[in-house]
Amino acid sequence: MSTGPAQYADAHRAEFLDLLCRLVTQPSVSAQGLGVPECAELLASMMRELGIKATVLPTSGFPVVFGSAPGPEDALTVLIYGHYDVQPPEPYDAWFSPPFEPTVRDGRLYGRGAADNKGQLLAHVLAVGSYLATGTPLPVNVKFLFEGEEESGSPNLEEFVAQNLGLLRCDLVVTSDGPMHDTGRPIVFFGVRGSLYVELIARGACRDLHSGHYGGIAPNPAFELCRLIATMKRPDGKVAVEGFYENVVAPTAYERELMSRIPLDEEALKEDLGVGRLASVGDLSHYERLMFEPTLNVCGLAAGYQGPGSKTIIPARASAKIDMRLVANQDPKDILDKVIRHVRRHSPDVEVVQRGWATAPSKTSPSLPLSIEVVEAVRRASPAEPVVYPSLGASMPDYIFTRVLGVPSIGVPLGNPDEHNHSPNENFRLEEFYRGIGTSLAIISRLGAAAS
Amino acid sequence: MSTGPAQYADAHRAEFLDLLCRLVTQPSVSAQGLGVPECAELLASMMRELGIKATVLPTSGFPVVFGSAPGPEDALTVLIYGHYDVQPPEPYDAWFSPPFEPTVRDGRLYGRGAADNKGQLLAHVLAVGSYLATGTPLPVNVKFLFEGEEESGSPNLEEFVAQNLGLLRCDLVVTSDGPMHDTGRPIVFFGVRGSLYVELIARGACRDLHSGHYGGIAPNPAFELCRLIATMKRPDGKVAVEGFYENVVAPTAYERELMSRIPLDEEALKEDLGVGRLASVGDLSHYERLMFEPTLNVCGLAAGYQGPGSKTIIPARASAKIDMRLVANQDPKDILDKVIRHVRRHSPDVEVVQRGWATAPSKTSPSLPLSIEVVEAVRRASPAEPVVYPSLGASMPDYIFTRVLGVPSIGVPLGNPDEHNHSPNENFRLEEFYRGIGTSLAIISRLGAAAS
Repeated sequence: MSTGPAQYADAHRAEFLDLLCRLVTQPSVSAQGLGVPECAELLASMMRELGIKATVLPTSGFPVVFGSAPGPEDALTVLIYGHYDVQPPEPYDAWFSPPFEPTVRDGRLYGRGAADNKGQLLAHVLAVGSYLATGTPLPVNVKFLFEGEEESGSPNLEEFVAQNLGLLRCDLVVTSDGPMHDTGRPIVFFGVRGSLYVELIARGACRDLHSGHYGGIAPNPAFELCRLIATMKRPDGKVAVEGFYENVVAPTAYERELMSRIPLDEEALKEDLGVGRLASVGDLSHYERLMFEPTLNVCGLAAGYQGPGSKTIIPARASAKIDMRLVANQDPKDILDKVIRHVRRHSPDVEVVQRGWATAPSKTSPSLPLSIEVVEAVRRASPAEPVVYPSLGASMPDYIFTRVLGVPSIGVPLGNPDEHNHSPNENFRLEEFYRGIGTSLAIISRLGAAAS
Repeated sequence: MSTGPAQYADAHRAEFLDLLCRLVTQPSVSAQGLGVPECAELLASMMRELGIKATVLPTSGFPVVFGSAPGPEDALTVLIYGHYDVQPPEPYDAWFSPPFEPTVRDGRLYGRGAADNKGQLLAHVLAVGSYLATGTPLPVNVKFLFEGEEESGSPNLEEFVAQNLGLLRCDLVVTSDGPMHDTGRPIVFFGVRGSLYVELIARGACRDLHSGHYGGIAPNPAFELCRLIATMKRPDGKVAVEGFYENVVAPTAYERELMSRIPLDEEALKEDLGVGRLASVGDLSHYERLMFEPTLNVCGLAAGYQGPGSKTIIPARASAKIDMRLVANQDPKDILDKVIRHVRRHSPDVEVVQRGWATAPSKTSPSLPLSIEVVEAVRRASPAEPVVYPSLGASMPDYIFTRVLGVPSIGVPLGNPDEHNHSPNENFRLEEFYRGIGTSLAIISRLGAAAS
C-alpha cells in the first residue's frame, strides 16, 4: 500500500521543521528593507525542491513568489495567499533567543516570522509538497501568491494582481494568517472591514492668543473641532454623516446564526478593557457591531496646550485623527466624499485631509458551497469545532481578491492564540504547524471532492 | 518762591533715573528665587532715603515692602500697589544689553523690570519723595504695598491683605502696571475679569485599543469629550452651562458710553490675527464681549495619536484644558460647581479637575467721584486723552483689593506700549518714566482736592 500525503507529512515532520527554520533564519523585514529579495529567492528555491513550479516576480516594490502545482485540467483552482516578509524584530533585548536564530523550546518554534507568516504559508506549501512527494494526484490546481510587503501595508499588491489576472485566475483564495480563537478553536472568516483615515484640521488665529486679551473676540478652533465631531454621531451611536449607511448590507439569517455561535463573554471583555460598559450602537448585537457595522472613531485629538498645569491660550490650530471601518458594500472614496460634504456643511473652514491608504471592505458569503467545504475541511482537521466569523472587525486588503480578482476569499488562521505576532518572542506551536499542514491537506482534498 | 514737588521732580530726573537703575541692577526673579529678599531690602532702604517710612514684612512666600507717608489726619488714604519681582530674563542671548545691567539707549532704559514693574512703582514713590523733599504737605495719606510674587501669581497676597486689614486700610487702591494704549494714549481701567481653569478627563478602556478589533465595541473617550464640550456652548456662542450667567451684571449706560469711545479697528485686528471674522457672542459689541461677558475657552485638547500619518486606535484617555474668564459678580467657586453639575449631567464619567488658582473678577465703578478724579488727573498729566476701560479682558488678583480690602481699585498703566514686558529687551521710555511721576503727582493732588 502506497503512502498518502498525510502519512508522508507525519513521517517528515523533522525535515519540515528544518525547512521552516531555514526560512526564519533568513531575515525579511520589509519596513527596514532587510533581506527581502533574498528571502523570496530562498522560498522559491525551497518550493522548487518540493516539486512546485515557483518563480520570483518583480513588483513596483519587493517581489512576489508565485508558485503552481497542477491538478486535473477541469478541476477547481485554489490560490493560497501569504506573505514572506516579517515585522521588525525590535526590541532585540526582549527576545529570549535571537529573532533570526529559530529555536525550539517547550514545543514551540521561536523566531520572527515563525507564525507570521512563514510557518503558516509553509504549511500549505508542504501539504502540496506531500502530494507531489508521494505521487498522489492533486485533486485541485493549486497556485501560491506570497508577497514581500504585507507588513508594510501591501502597497503594490493591488497593482500586481490587476496586472496578472490571467496568471492568478482561480476559483477561490485561501489565506492563513493570524491566530486562532482564544479558546484554541480554529477560525474561518469570510471578510474584513475596510478602512479610511482622515485628519480634520481647524484653524483660528495665526498664533496662539492670550485668552484674557482675546477671549470672546477671537475664534476658537478647538471648540469648533469638538462641535464638528459631535455632529458626526447621533445620540444612539450611529454615524450622522448623511448617506453613510447607504450601501450597508445587513447580515443574512445564516450570518446571524453564525454570529450567535461565536463565543462571547462580555463580562470578561469588560474586565479586560477596564470599562464599566461597552459601546452601544442602536440595538445591534455585539458581533453585528463588530462585523456588519461601520464605525467612525476618533483616534487622536491635538490642540493648544497639553502639558501639566495651566496655560491660558486660545489655540491657533486644532486637529483630530479619525478612522472609519467600512463594511460591505461601502466604498472608501464615496465615504470620503460624504465626510467632506458633512464637514463643508457644518464647519466650512475645517480642512479634511486623507491620511494613509484606504482599503475597501471585503465580504465572501459563508453560504457558498466552496465556503461550506472549507469550513468542513477545517472541522475535520481539528479536534475542536471551528468558530466561523462572517467577517473580522479589522482591515486587510482582501478586497484585492474579492473585488479585483473577483473570487471568494476565505481566511483560515493557523497560528496559536499566543503566537505573539508583531511582538518579541513570536512563536509557532509545532503542533499547530503540523496540524496546519493537515488542515491544508483537508482543504485540498474536500475542494477536490466538491468539484468532482 | 519755594519749589513745588513737580519742579523738584523735573530738576532731579538724573538722580531718579539712577535710583531706577539701582533697582533694576538687583535681580528679583520670583520664579527662580533669585535676589527677591535682597531687592525688598533695597527698595525699602531707597524709600526710607526719600523720607518714606518703609518696612519689609514677611509673608508665607517672599516679603512685601510696606511704606507710608502721612497726609492730614482726616484726608483720604490712597494705597499704591505694585510688585518688585520680575519675570525670568531668559533667553539671555536675545538681549542687546544684559537684563540686570540697566542701559539707556535711544531715550529708553533697557533692563528686566525697567517697566514691569520697578519703573512704574518707583514713579509713585518718587512723586511722594518729591513732596517730602520740598516740604510740601501731602494732601492725602499715601500707603505703598509692593509684593515680591506677582510674576508667580501672587499666591500669598490675599492672605497677607486679609491678615493686615488695619495696616492697609485705605479709601482707594491705585495700581500702575502694564502698557498704555497702542496709540500711546494713557489708559485708566476699572476692573479685570476673573479666571477659572479646569481640565476635563474622559477615560475609556485601560489601554489604547486596535480600532478594527474594538471599533463599535469599546467606548471612545475622545468622542465623548468632544460631545461634552459641544454641549457647553449654544449656537450663538453663549455658554450653555446652567446658571452660568446668573450673577452677570450688564454694563451701565456710562460704561457703554466709555466702551463706545475706546478706539477699535476690527479690520486691523482681523488682519493681525489672520482671521476672516472675529468670534460673535449673541449680539454683543466688541468691548462688551471682552469686558462684560464671561468666556469658556478650550485651551488644549489631547487624546490618542497626534503624530504624523495614521495610527488606528481607540484612545484610552482624552483631556481638555478649559479656562473661563469671569465677570462681576461671578464667583469662581460657584461657577466650578455649575461646570461640575453640567459635566455630571451630560457625561457622568468625565472627571473635572481644577488646575492652577482661580481668581475672582473685580469691578470698580467708573462713576465714583474718586474714579472720575483719577481719570481727570491722568488727563491733566498727559498730552493725550485717556482711554477709559470699564474692565480689562485679562485677569489679575484685583479682587483682593475690591473684595477683601473692600475699596475701589483703579489701574493706571504707565508703561510705553512697546515696553516688551515679559520679553527680552524690556524697556521703559524715560519720557514715560518722568511723565509717570507727573501722573502720580496729579493723582495725589486731585484726590487731595476732592476730599477737602
